[in-house]
Amino acid sequence: MFHATKSVGITFARLSGQSEQRADQVATEEPMEVRLRHQVDGAWTERSISITMRTPGNDAELAVGFLFTEGIVRGFDQIAHVEHCGPANAGGLRNVIKVTLAEGVEVDVGKLMRNFYTTSSCGVCGKSSLEALNVEARYDIPEPVPLITATALGAAPERLREQQKLFDSTGGIHASGLYAANGELQAVREDVGRHNALDKLIGQALQQRLLPLSESTIILSGRASFELLQKSLMAGIPIVAAVGAPSSLAIECAAANNMTLVGFLRGQGFNIYTSPERIIFDA
Amino acid sequence: MFHATKSVGITFARLSGQSEQRADQVATEEPMEVRLRHQVDGAWTERSISITMRTPGNDAELAVGFLFTEGIVRGFDQIAHVEHCGPANAGGLRNVIKVTLAEGVEVDVGKLMRNFYTTSSCGVCGKSSLEALNVEARYDIPEPVPLITATALGAAPERLREQQKLFDSTGGIHASGLYAANGELQAVREDVGRHNALDKLIGQALQQRLLPLSESTIILSGRASFELLQKSLMAGIPIVAAVGAPSSLAIECAAANNMTLVGFLRGQGFNIYTSPERIIFDA
Repeated sequence: MFHATKSVGITFARLSGQSEQRADQVATEEPMEVRLRHQVDGAWTERSISITMRTPGNDAELAVGFLFTEGIVRGFDQIAHVEHCGPANAGGLRNVIKVTLAEGVEVDVGKLMRNFYTTSSCGVCGKSSLEALNVEARYDIPEPVPLITATALGAAPERLREQQKLFDSTGGIHASGLYAANGELQAVREDVGRHNALDKLIGQALQQRLLPLSESTIILSGRASFELLQKSLMAGIPIVAAVGAPSSLAIECAAANNMTLVGFLRGQGFNIYTSPERIIFDA
Repeated sequence: MFHATKSVGITFARLSGQSEQRADQVATEEPMEVRLRHQVDGAWTERSISITMRTPGNDAELAVGFLFTEGIVRGFDQIAHVEHCGPANAGGLRNVIKVTLAEGVEVDVGKLMRNFYTTSSCGVCGKSSLEALNVEARYDIPEPVPLITATALGAAPERLREQQKLFDSTGGIHASGLYAANGELQAVREDVGRHNALDKLIGQALQQRLLPLSESTIILSGRASFELLQKSLMAGIPIVAAVGAPSSLAIECAAANNMTLVGFLRGQGFNIYTSPERIIFDA
């Protein structure tokens, strides 16, 4: 069995000078290796393509979500099998996921290498930031039309919080939620890494063949970085709403791709950075 | 000139239905490429070794801090030059940092490749998490002796917050602070990436030849992950105190290396996860 939280002994200290021994729950963080088995010129080969620090659970979703949002696989039909290398109680084996691609699916090994930053050519010189990052979106986001009310958007953080089971016990873990226009929270994933929480969420939608998620909103429990916008874009999601602040490049990515980006979604309002037309105000 | 924040136009929306156009400041996020020029068997070679999304500013600190905390260089005397590839106004060039190692310093290219996860061998199978991550500490952390009072520790988040200039304008950016036992905040660095904020902080200490920081505390504005503990360990720092929650692997890393790990440092107290002996209670 995977354990997404662990019990630890702590010293609970007060500034007034008291302290006591307690047990406490913390979020589990363990490395997960993704191994890809695929064909090159017709011959099968297997390689390790990433190690990510993640909270155990939903590992298959994480692996396929990662492969998809990084542009390594283009759809779920390219994937034949996803499996752990060993049983959940078998030490390191439970932390290795092997993804076997369908016969005939070849991946661009050069692209894999570029993704992991080991080329000898210069990636950033003389290019704009977005060019350098080489976004290759799988879906186009359509021109904005009204999609969700400000009221439904305002209720989203509380809906997300209600479903954050790991946050309840640990007090500190990221979450991503898939939110429908009618205010229904369709899925939530939690992880110590915010990119992992989103990859798990997109991975499960990919497995259910729900992509593109062209009427959904992604709710982020923290800040919105470029990486999270790019992953949402890969899944065809038109609205990203973050409880925290966005970065400049997140805004540029949203603007360049017709996405609606909302930040500081908390309390009695929010900020809209791009494409406000998707949000409906009642008054 | 680098700009760590950018002004953007936003729609400031209230749930009550009002909205207005405003200007707002957001934290700049841009890719930075680190290129390493070094010798292999006596011949000079140059390669791109990482692209990280960072907030511009203190780029040289970030580059040397990253190279040191990743174990690629072992000290500042191994570095001959650090330079931007182009002027600050020259498009992508300002986002490329070239680090030239001193003559005769060879880096282990295989290790570089392992760091960036492109090997074909299996990194995690059959190993414990810490073994798999292959921590090679530069300094040993000594057995714990009393070092800082609970009162000084409790005051640290406010000291950090006072120095967070970018947080003031943007409302969302990570910070790391280097805090002395007497309660003096010696340096603060901010970045959209929490690992970058810490690499900048350690990079500046490395440039000033202050390592190991054997009596210092690192204050983190957010959560404590394994990666942040490992970077602190590389700089020989015995105490890491986070405003947010720690992960399980952060605690394991601290426990395995004699480090003191504090979490939930906020309000009237904090949690001590490992080596509480370094913290002095007045009462």
